[in-house]
Amino acid sequence: MVLERIGSPADLKALPLEDLPALAEELRAAIIAAVARLGGHLGSNLGVVELTIALHRVFDSGGRDLLLWDTGHQAYVHKMLTGRSGMFDTLKQSGGLSGYPSRSESEHDVIENSHASTALSWAFGVARGEQAKDPEDRRRVVAVVGDGALTGGMAYEALNNLGHHRLPVLIVLNDNGRSYAETVGRLSERVSDLRTDPRYRTWRARLDRVLSRVPLVERVAGAGLEGIKQFVSDAPALQSFVEALGVRYLGPVDGHDVARLEHVLTTAERLTGPVLVHVLTQKGKGYEPAETDLEMHLHDTSAFDLLAGPGNGGVPKPRGWTAAFSDAITDLATRRRDVIAITAAMPGSTGLLPLAERRPDQVLDVGIAEQHAITAAAGMAQAGLTPVVALYSTFFTRGFDQANLDVGLHDEHVVFCFDRAGITGNDGASHQGVLDLGLMLRIPTATVLAPSTEEDLRALLEVALDLDGPVSLRFPKYAVATAAALGLDGPGEGLEAAEVRRVAEEVDTDLCLLAVGDRVGPALEAAELLGEHGIETTVWDVRSVRPADPRMLAAAAQAPLVVTVENGYVAGGAGAHLADRIVELAGVREAPPVLRLGVPDTYISHAKPDAILAELGLDAAGISSAVRKVLSDG
Amino acid sequence: MVLERIGSPADLKALPLEDLPALAEELRAAIIAAVARLGGHLGSNLGVVELTIALHRVFDSGGRDLLLWDTGHQAYVHKMLTGRSGMFDTLKQSGGLSGYPSRSESEHDVIENSHASTALSWAFGVARGEQAKDPEDRRRVVAVVGDGALTGGMAYEALNNLGHHRLPVLIVLNDNGRSYAETVGRLSERVSDLRTDPRYRTWRARLDRVLSRVPLVERVAGAGLEGIKQFVSDAPALQSFVEALGVRYLGPVDGHDVARLEHVLTTAERLTGPVLVHVLTQKGKGYEPAETDLEMHLHDTSAFDLLAGPGNGGVPKPRGWTAAFSDAITDLATRRRDVIAITAAMPGSTGLLPLAERRPDQVLDVGIAEQHAITAAAGMAQAGLTPVVALYSTFFTRGFDQANLDVGLHDEHVVFCFDRAGITGNDGASHQGVLDLGLMLRIPTATVLAPSTEEDLRALLEVALDLDGPVSLRFPKYAVATAAALGLDGPGEGLEAAEVRRVAEEVDTDLCLLAVGDRVGPALEAAELLGEHGIETTVWDVRSVRPADPRMLAAAAQAPLVVTVENGYVAGGAGAHLADRIVELAGVREAPPVLRLGVPDTYISHAKPDAILAELGLDAAGISSAVRKVLSDG
Repeated sequence: MVLERIGSPADLKALPLEDLPALAEELRAAIIAAVARLGGHLGSNLGVVELTIALHRVFDSGGRDLLLWDTGHQAYVHKMLTGRSGMFDTLKQSGGLSGYPSRSESEHDVIENSHASTALSWAFGVARGEQAKDPEDRRRVVAVVGDGALTGGMAYEALNNLGHHRLPVLIVLNDNGRSYAETVGRLSERVSDLRTDPRYRTWRARLDRVLSRVPLVERVAGAGLEGIKQFVSDAPALQSFVEALGVRYLGPVDGHDVARLEHVLTTAERLTGPVLVHVLTQKGKGYEPAETDLEMHLHDTSAFDLLAGPGNGGVPKPRGWTAAFSDAITDLATRRRDVIAITAAMPGSTGLLPLAERRPDQVLDVGIAEQHAITAAAGMAQAGLTPVVALYSTFFTRGFDQANLDVGLHDEHVVFCFDRAGITGNDGASHQGVLDLGLMLRIPTATVLAPSTEEDLRALLEVALDLDGPVSLRFPKYAVATAAALGLDGPGEGLEAAEVRRVAEEVDTDLCLLAVGDRVGPALEAAELLGEHGIETTVWDVRSVRPADPRMLAAAAQAPLVVTVENGYVAGGAGAHLADRIVELAGVREAPPVLRLGVPDTYISHAKPDAILAELGLDAAGISSAVRKVLSDG
Repeated sequence: MVLERIGSPADLKALPLEDLPALAEELRAAIIAAVARLGGHLGSNLGVVELTIALHRVFDSGGRDLLLWDTGHQAYVHKMLTGRSGMFDTLKQSGGLSGYPSRSESEHDVIENSHASTALSWAFGVARGEQAKDPEDRRRVVAVVGDGALTGGMAYEALNNLGHHRLPVLIVLNDNGRSYAETVGRLSERVSDLRTDPRYRTWRARLDRVLSRVPLVERVAGAGLEGIKQFVSDAPALQSFVEALGVRYLGPVDGHDVARLEHVLTTAERLTGPVLVHVLTQKGKGYEPAETDLEMHLHDTSAFDLLAGPGNGGVPKPRGWTAAFSDAITDLATRRRDVIAITAAMPGSTGLLPLAERRPDQVLDVGIAEQHAITAAAGMAQAGLTPVVALYSTFFTRGFDQANLDVGLHDEHVVFCFDRAGITGNDGASHQGVLDLGLMLRIPTATVLAPSTEEDLRALLEVALDLDGPVSLRFPKYAVATAAALGLDGPGEGLEAAEVRRVAEEVDTDLCLLAVGDRVGPALEAAELLGEHGIETTVWDVRSVRPADPRMLAAAAQAPLVVTVENGYVAGGAGAHLADRIVELAGVREAPPVLRLGVPDTYISHAKPDAILAELGLDAAGISSAVRKVLSDG
């Protein structure tokens, strides 16, 4: 085993070139084995094996070079090459390796925000900071970004500033032609064309001839660069685009040829100012099911059986909320031509593929561009369509300004569907969906809905499509709840009349428990636990946080104690909103005490969602014990 | 008077060409007179007089064409040409014309978000919606954007999508070479070069020759376009950039030549797919003080004396918070080489010019690119600098994701200084600074400060520079308060010990009033008013919302009634945070009732700030009466 001998990048540098193919093979085997057992990001990591090897052989990570990974789900190889291969079988497990770069794990991990397109701004900032140091103390900044990240506006802002200030940042563009789905946008379309463009092969042949004749430095910096320049000046849009912004372009380079990569990276390092090296890689490289995974089922996969192949796990996967949403939107949108579902580069993960197959003109993928997605949705609503913006909750913070001012202030009818709302667990702090409720409630004109069951998701989505102004719906990551499983008899009945469901019919109980979305199940269980202690509880399924059902608010205003529970930041969240409405009804001094349960304002590391929710006291036991504590304190 | 005859764009279309110079002159005179009397945006509106005339002569606004204005402060001429010239003397006054497009004023105003770079996404969305209609019912979308707006990532996301989908949107780039300050970025640098580039004149001469020889249609669509193409292919980066994204480029065109503008716009209208017409205009055109206003004092000016010229008003302007911040940051940063102040295209408005003059390397203007500004700041902090991000409060929503994950999650020491925090008044709903407190409090690692006086702004800024992690400071738009004016003896003394100031020393009063930032003054007055009714009040100047002074919280937890007051959204804001801390101390059922005063979740139209604050009950009278109501209710 070669991998066993790699304790640090220094060991890798010492390795003879001929050992690298074996190392690459071992790395791939380790990735496939770990992801099959534990789930994780398969295709993107298989695609960057050689690139990561080359980067760590050329640059001095942890020393005078800083390696910044954009959307760090492509950092598995980086982890294994920086002393963590022995722990790789703990990937994404509580107490084990994070699925993303993590500063607490290694000095080689510098940034750990897994929202896309940030690395170039980080690189700009660090390079600007290094400028203030003595030349001999300055670190060199290398940023690795995917082609998908280039569809994000932030990346453009950074390129524009890098070009303007001519900061010495080396950008490695890992172009696999599809970030999540096929990368969207005119620019990347042309980038991907390269691989099939006959001129690319011609150029490769020409470059090969040039490279074989001249010594290394002149090769690429002199004749080689000229060769590249000549080729690219009449071929790809990417070079024009990048150079218009003042960033030098090198490439394209075969991302699976370590020797060539090392040559080009070494050359790029010697140039002044910002340089972009365009590297062509194949997502899923070396593992056939991942190479051909065009619909991205293996982008972020759950565990699977190695022999049976991906998608075939030992444990059957329970039906998830995404599937429930997918069925509902597909059914509703095929019956309404005005509905258009919008995704920011995640048609598969957000459940929009079935609709896209049946009605391609009713699904729009804008790339990793949440800001544009949301304002474009406002425009579509203005022109008479009914846009449904399907986002992971965590990415909504990218477009809050647009949701507030373009959708909210203009009172356009845009439906936001937040998947992965609440604690998501394994993907770490930047993926928790804890802010959507608080942010939507700051949009004055927005209706804020939170279904508790699959039946209700469908019912509320239908209601949402018929409302006016901004509307949001949220649902969590894991298995979907059904009315039957919760012991309920069907969904609520719209927002006009019976919009909430009083789950327990008793009046004059000891407390009124208002549960939001996926916390209805635990709240019902908590009521039973409390019953065992002689405490009688009325449980409400809030369903609509705003507007909240007046009957529910009136009942709560009369209760001796109100408890709210939600899967999101408790500060400024649903419970806070309901508590304020109760105070409006009852008066500041007469309102009942309100115990608000939810996620505290803190960054929450990766672990299993259930474990995190239990630790935060948001499961049945936690709710019950929090209530008993308050009652016994009094 | 020609202007008097223009009741609608139809009248304008009927006007003979020879009347246009007189009309332009009248429009300029009307703008100068109104802005001199009432304040407003001078330079940008003087620059677009001819362009707006041409747009309304060529297109059918309100009919089959939709005119979308990005950052609508350039829409004064548009307002006057669409039936509102008679009301122009009510500009920005309560009940009068808004300073921005306003849907309630006119069918000609479609979008009214004055945050930059949104219009192209709106245009994309509307055009996509129009596609779903019968061809004869489709409206054509024309979006007018400034060169500054192109530095925002959103604009790039939209261009990329427009090019990809080839939607028929006509983009008019109003390039005056400086949006707020000189436009930042490599791209716009080259754009501005055009005007001084000798090739531009050569091209102009060539185009003139071409245009004089061939009939109109072929002129621009045929030989003319070729002429343009030849020129631009070896000159400006803008064409490469735009065409790399799949958007057709036409120009550059003299933005003060109505006949030429009409020709080019007419041609552009006939092309399919997205087209960008590059129009060169001169900011402040026709009014010498505005033409030469390089430092942008007249971008958004207060009233001035017409004879004496801008900057010389009848009423002397009281010292503002911006000036106080400017003095403090200039003084502190010139003594600390590690401080770097970052602005998103507003070095003048945020008070950074004096520092930029003394220490150019300690001020960085990134363009209208808040996302990049904030993540770049995180990078700079990582590399050892102390970045100060100076933003208007309202623009912070553009970079909240980055502040939360790049700054907050990474616990980088970045100081956010929010000017125009709270109600800003005249600029309308999208400029109110009501969200910064609530958003900063959702960043778990952030320290949240709010000085009440000029002395305290200086003291807290100094504290902020020495802290760790994210820190924010906020201050409002209007005249700065001094300790003397509030009857206080100097600022507080840091965050360690005496971090809050108990303004009234009494204990065992009827209520404990916790006032945040600029509400300390009104709170002190309110205490006096309450005293007249026999109600004794202890007033605290909160200063640090998080961490809040434990002594203050302990005192509040013992009070019969707690009242919080802040100039920002009350839901999820400072008062909510303080109330939660009090509940932690006293228990859910034992905590005193808390009356939280602040801005309700609603969009607030333009009016004088004091009038709005009074209407919201956030002045002394409002605070006092809200307290009396609660006490009498009990």
